[in-house]
Amino acid sequence: MKKYSEMTREELLAEKELLEKRYAEKKSLGLKLDISRGKPCPEQLALSLPMLDIINSETESFKCENGFDIRNYGVVEGIPECRRLFGEILDAPAENVIVTGNSSLNLFYDLIAHAVCHGLPGGNSPWSECKERKLLCPAPGYDRHFAVGELFGFELITVPMNPDGPDMDTVEELIKDETVKGIICVPKYSNPQGITYSDEVVKRFANLSPAAPDFRIFWDNAYTVHHLDFSGEKDEIPSLLRLAEENGKGDMVYMLGSTSKITFPSAGLAAVASSEKNIADFRHTLSFQNIGPDKINQMRHVLFFKNLEGVLSHMKKQSDIVRPKFETVLKVLKSELSESGNAKWNTPKGGYFISAELMEGTAKRTVTLCKEAGLTITGAGAVYPYGKDPADSILRIAPTFAPVSELPDAMEIFCISAKLSAVEKLLK
Amino acid sequence: MKKYSEMTREELLAEKELLEKRYAEKKSLGLKLDISRGKPCPEQLALSLPMLDIINSETESFKCENGFDIRNYGVVEGIPECRRLFGEILDAPAENVIVTGNSSLNLFYDLIAHAVCHGLPGGNSPWSECKERKLLCPAPGYDRHFAVGELFGFELITVPMNPDGPDMDTVEELIKDETVKGIICVPKYSNPQGITYSDEVVKRFANLSPAAPDFRIFWDNAYTVHHLDFSGEKDEIPSLLRLAEENGKGDMVYMLGSTSKITFPSAGLAAVASSEKNIADFRHTLSFQNIGPDKINQMRHVLFFKNLEGVLSHMKKQSDIVRPKFETVLKVLKSELSESGNAKWNTPKGGYFISAELMEGTAKRTVTLCKEAGLTITGAGAVYPYGKDPADSILRIAPTFAPVSELPDAMEIFCISAKLSAVEKLLK
Repeated sequence: MKKYSEMTREELLAEKELLEKRYAEKKSLGLKLDISRGKPCPEQLALSLPMLDIINSETESFKCENGFDIRNYGVVEGIPECRRLFGEILDAPAENVIVTGNSSLNLFYDLIAHAVCHGLPGGNSPWSECKERKLLCPAPGYDRHFAVGELFGFELITVPMNPDGPDMDTVEELIKDETVKGIICVPKYSNPQGITYSDEVVKRFANLSPAAPDFRIFWDNAYTVHHLDFSGEKDEIPSLLRLAEENGKGDMVYMLGSTSKITFPSAGLAAVASSEKNIADFRHTLSFQNIGPDKINQMRHVLFFKNLEGVLSHMKKQSDIVRPKFETVLKVLKSELSESGNAKWNTPKGGYFISAELMEGTAKRTVTLCKEAGLTITGAGAVYPYGKDPADSILRIAPTFAPVSELPDAMEIFCISAKLSAVEKLLK
Repeated sequence: MKKYSEMTREELLAEKELLEKRYAEKKSLGLKLDISRGKPCPEQLALSLPMLDIINSETESFKCENGFDIRNYGVVEGIPECRRLFGEILDAPAENVIVTGNSSLNLFYDLIAHAVCHGLPGGNSPWSECKERKLLCPAPGYDRHFAVGELFGFELITVPMNPDGPDMDTVEELIKDETVKGIICVPKYSNPQGITYSDEVVKRFANLSPAAPDFRIFWDNAYTVHHLDFSGEKDEIPSLLRLAEENGKGDMVYMLGSTSKITFPSAGLAAVASSEKNIADFRHTLSFQNIGPDKINQMRHVLFFKNLEGVLSHMKKQSDIVRPKFETVLKVLKSELSESGNAKWNTPKGGYFISAELMEGTAKRTVTLCKEAGLTITGAGAVYPYGKDPADSILRIAPTFAPVSELPDAMEIFCISAKLSAVEKLLK
């Protein structure tokens, strides 16, 4: 088959007719499919159910390691054993970890709110007093990250993504502006491209010299243990905090993580790892907000996983559930889109998403066509700041939640819609 | 026995000698007692242990009423059945309730942060832009409330407490100042005086006409079901939100509550009830911060209590545990302090505290003496804004956490210290 770009007008018209026929057939099925959000499926959730049995009315002791009763007030920074667990997950010393909240998004929001209201170590004032504040946003990225920045009045500055992470020349240039207060990153199995930052990129992050004395790298390592295990391949990155500390720049780093997609998205745990100074500062604010996190739930997680090895073995079971879904999506993408040449996509080694780069100017139309045929996908533009994809070409596919049986139909609708949009565009 | 104020110098010197002897005896016991914080005791916590068994790996359905999986993302405002439960507790329609967080303090902080960062309905700008912002603080009150106000840069304005609540003439006068942005109240079984606001006071609150268009009443009804049940006596107050709505002033009200001292302080739930507009506004911000609260824990609470009746019957068991502690404290106060006439205290019908008003200028000295004899109590001044009790006379006693067997010693040390401080002062 010819590439679309090489087809004559007549060939395109013939292809259009074919696609419209296929599209009408799919539409007539009246399906209701959804590949829009990165949600674990019920089978994944079921893996964590035994955790709910671990602490119960027969439990003999409710004391955590430092002697506190996990049922009562106190221990604002989280119980020691759970800080240690997250220290292993995030690759940071336990004493540099605070466990609170239920998602890394939640902690990102809280840290931004903290900076806006109270300021951060090294800074001269609360960020609310910096009227021109800017946030660097490597994109394609996570829509909810950008939304938090926008809500708090940051100007969002797009940083292009390379195959090995954000374009560091651009980052190093942009941080010379002292109104640039931070950058939000998903360094491993990124949302949505599944990109893992190279060691070189991480090292350059660890050695940034920003103009703003209270500049921060928000390092949302949400997918650090979410390997997809295609033939056992795993990505690893060095600990940004440890590298930055070696450079005397540990205060620049907040590493975030959670068990949202490890145990239960609503009933999981979140953690931040940072320098001693930042941890003391954030703990101080937390001590006003709260007289302690849900320590019973922290202990549930500790007893369920025991250590990083326990987490990884649990994630192996998760990948066995979701890998076939990714395989199905990739298979349909390949069979439908590779020959026409109007799309590229990534094959992630982990994380929750596949990102498809369609022909320029066709992403929005594709979403509309998908919707009309009963398939919900993340809106076009969502992966860019302000929801504006300059090329109108990137779409995010979230394969985990839908039953594997629904994915062939969903992906056929997606691909037919993408091809039809491309042909329509070429015929204009 | 004569009152101290009527004693001659000689009589005071004799009393001092006597007290010093008793003090030395107590001190020599090397006790380590603590009546400083309002924490439930282990026996109270044990009452809620069956709640931990309710949701487990054998649970058949994890769906809540609106069809969401309680283990997954979503339902930012809380599951419908839990909103209904808190609607009953707070006396507000379920649709006007958001369930999130684990303490009313936590929600007070989050609402203040929300107002400071983003502004509130009716207001012209985020509170961060109002540089002279003020918070009214009925005092004696809760030290952590005042601390949140101070952290966020509010000037704290003390409002005197009457036996039926804050002095409303003062409140009505102070709110003519448009930089007064709010007032923080504990309307029932107040911390620390156990005062329940009269219907008349609540009605005046519901009809305030503040100069600031975004003025708010933070109504921390933390102890609404915490009756002590001395001979079945209970206080009740009308719903401030319902009264304010009748006056077309519902936007002025945030009613807060939690299960911190009903189930588990760290692993409980918190809720806010407010007008439709405020709820939509706060939900909007929450939807950026979080993709849903811990709905498993919400469901645990719903299944454990079922409804308000279930909560009240649970609280009856709690009061049976703590009432003897309050009785012990009151008994020692009466036998030690009533004759000397240098102190007053309240007999609360509910809540967590007893507040003692000692001779002016003796509270700090009393705390020091207590400490040296092995008894930790809440610092003098804590119940006032900025930790400054103008008369240096109010001390807060928290009887719940200590074993009842320790309370006679603790209270004797307290009373001896208070009397010794008074005698020392009179002899100066």
